[in-house]
Amino acid sequence: MFAVTILGNNSAVPAFGRHPTAQVVTFNGVNYLVDCGEGTQIQMINYKIRRSKISHIFISHLHGDHYFGLIGLINSFGLLSHQQELHVFGPAGLKEIIELQLKVAETTLPFNLYLHTITGAATLVDNEKITIKCFPTNHRIECYGFVFEEKKMPRKLIPEKAIEFEIPQSFYERLRLGEDYTKKDGSIVKNEWLTEEGPHCRKYAFCADTKYDESIIPHIANADMIYHETTYLDNLKDRAESRFHSTTKQAALIAKKAKVKKLLIGHFSSKYDTLEEFELEAKEVFPNTRLALEGTCFNI
Amino acid sequence: MFAVTILGNNSAVPAFGRHPTAQVVTFNGVNYLVDCGEGTQIQMINYKIRRSKISHIFISHLHGDHYFGLIGLINSFGLLSHQQELHVFGPAGLKEIIELQLKVAETTLPFNLYLHTITGAATLVDNEKITIKCFPTNHRIECYGFVFEEKKMPRKLIPEKAIEFEIPQSFYERLRLGEDYTKKDGSIVKNEWLTEEGPHCRKYAFCADTKYDESIIPHIANADMIYHETTYLDNLKDRAESRFHSTTKQAALIAKKAKVKKLLIGHFSSKYDTLEEFELEAKEVFPNTRLALEGTCFNI
Repeated sequence: MFAVTILGNNSAVPAFGRHPTAQVVTFNGVNYLVDCGEGTQIQMINYKIRRSKISHIFISHLHGDHYFGLIGLINSFGLLSHQQELHVFGPAGLKEIIELQLKVAETTLPFNLYLHTITGAATLVDNEKITIKCFPTNHRIECYGFVFEEKKMPRKLIPEKAIEFEIPQSFYERLRLGEDYTKKDGSIVKNEWLTEEGPHCRKYAFCADTKYDESIIPHIANADMIYHETTYLDNLKDRAESRFHSTTKQAALIAKKAKVKKLLIGHFSSKYDTLEEFELEAKEVFPNTRLALEGTCFNI
Repeated sequence: MFAVTILGNNSAVPAFGRHPTAQVVTFNGVNYLVDCGEGTQIQMINYKIRRSKISHIFISHLHGDHYFGLIGLINSFGLLSHQQELHVFGPAGLKEIIELQLKVAETTLPFNLYLHTITGAATLVDNEKITIKCFPTNHRIECYGFVFEEKKMPRKLIPEKAIEFEIPQSFYERLRLGEDYTKKDGSIVKNEWLTEEGPHCRKYAFCADTKYDESIIPHIANADMIYHETTYLDNLKDRAESRFHSTTKQAALIAKKAKVKKLLIGHFSSKYDTLEEFELEAKEVFPNTRLALEGTCFNI
C-alpha cells in the first residue's frame, strides 16, 4: 500500500469543520506524517490512523497551521509509552521550540527523539524501499515540500529466455540489476533480451505552501500524484501573490507542466464555506484533480 | 451572568471524545479563559463561545494538556483581526515559548499582547466588578489555581427608614458604603437601622492540577462553586499521590472542608471510558457534586 490520508485541509484558522494541514503517507506498513496542525492527534483518532506506526514526521514550515499540533503529538507519544525512535524534520527554529516545551514540563520521553533541521534541498530518508527528499518552495518564510518515491525495483527475469541463452543461475541476480552477460566465447547477451522493466516506481509530492513557482517542477515531475495548495479561487490571484499562496488554476498549471498523473488540492482559505468551485476551476486546467477532503485516503 | 462553560475535561491525552483542560468563566459580558489545551479554539467554535469577548487568559501550569492550544488561539486572534488587548497570565517559561513561536513565524499581531508571569499567590485582575487571584497548588511542576470573586456590592438603602431618621440625601451614598450617621445633637444613627446587606458576592475557584492538599482551603473557602481535579477513582489513591493528582473522594473532602456550595469534578484519566463512578464516589463525601461535562454551562 502506498497512499495518503488527509487529516486537515484548511489554511490558517479552523473553520467550517475543516482543520489545519496534516496528512499521513502510508507506505510498506509505515505511517509518515506530513505537517501537524493543531488537533492532528485528535484527527488521527477520528480517522483511525495508527499512531504507533509513525516514526517520521516532516514539517514544511513554521506557520502555526502546519505545526502547532506537533508538541502535543510528541507529548502523547511519551504518555502512551511509544518505544520506537521518532525522527522529526523541519526548518530551523523547530528544534528549539520543541526542546523548550519539553524542558518547562520536565518531560522525559521514553523514546529517542531526533529533531533534524532542514536547510535546503536534501535527501532525508533513504532505505531499501523508499527515498524521501525535500525541496524549497516559495513562501513568506522558509518552507519545504516533500517527495516520496519508491526505490527503483530490480528488472524482472524472463526464465525461458535465461534458459534459452544458457545463463548460469548464479548470474540471475546480476541480470535483475541490469547487467549484460558475456559468454565464454566473448559474445554478449544483452540484458534487455533476458529481462523486462521492473514494476513502476510510484512517486508522491507534497508541495507545501507556495506561491506559483515553476522552479518546483523538476522535483515533482512525472509524479503519480501531487498535493498542491489552492488557498484561493482564481479571481483572488493578486491576493495569492501578495500572501505567497496559490490559486486553483495556478496549482493545476503546475500539475500540467510537471506532467503528473493526479492532483490533490487543499489548504483552503477560511473565507470559503464550500469547496465545489475549487474543484471546478482546477479541472478546467487539469482534469484529474481531486479535493483533498478530510478523512479521504488516496491511493498513489 | 456569572457562569463557567467546560470545554475540556480530560487529562494528559485526548480520549473517548474528551479534550484536554479548558474552561470559560463568563462574567459581566466578558469571557475569561482558564487553561487552553490543544484544540480549545475548535471547542470554542463547537460550543459557540465568542472569542472576541476574551481579553484575559489564565494558564495554571506548563503541562501540555493545559496550554498547547494557547499559541494557536493567539495566532487565530491575529488572523481574525482581534483588536482588543490580550492579557495572558502563566508560570515562568510561558512568555518565552509564546514569543519564540511568534518570532519564527514572523508574526505581527494586530493587538497588544501582555504575557504576565505568575510567581506566587497574587491578585491578577482587580476592577470595579471582579477580583481574580491566583494561589499555588501542589503539583509536579509549578502550578496555580484561580479564584474569581465578585466585588463586594454596596449595602441597600431602606428609603422609608432614611426619611424617618431625617438623613440628608447627600449622605445616602455613604450609607450604602456602610457608614453610620451622626446627627447635629451628636447622637448616632446606626447604619444597620437604615440599610440592608447588599447582594451576595459570588465566588468561583478553579483548583487546577493538585494532589490532596488542605493548604488551598483558605483560598477557596465558602465559594459558591469550585472545580477540583479527580484524575483517578478512589482505589488509585497511591497512584494519585505519586503523580501529584487527586481522587474523587479527596476532591470531595476538600470541597466539604472548604464549605463550598457546589463541586465540579474533571481532569479524568484517559484510562476511564465512562465517568459515572466519578460522580458516585465524590457524592458519597460531598453530595452537591457534578461532572464537568464538556459543553455544559454551570451558573455560579
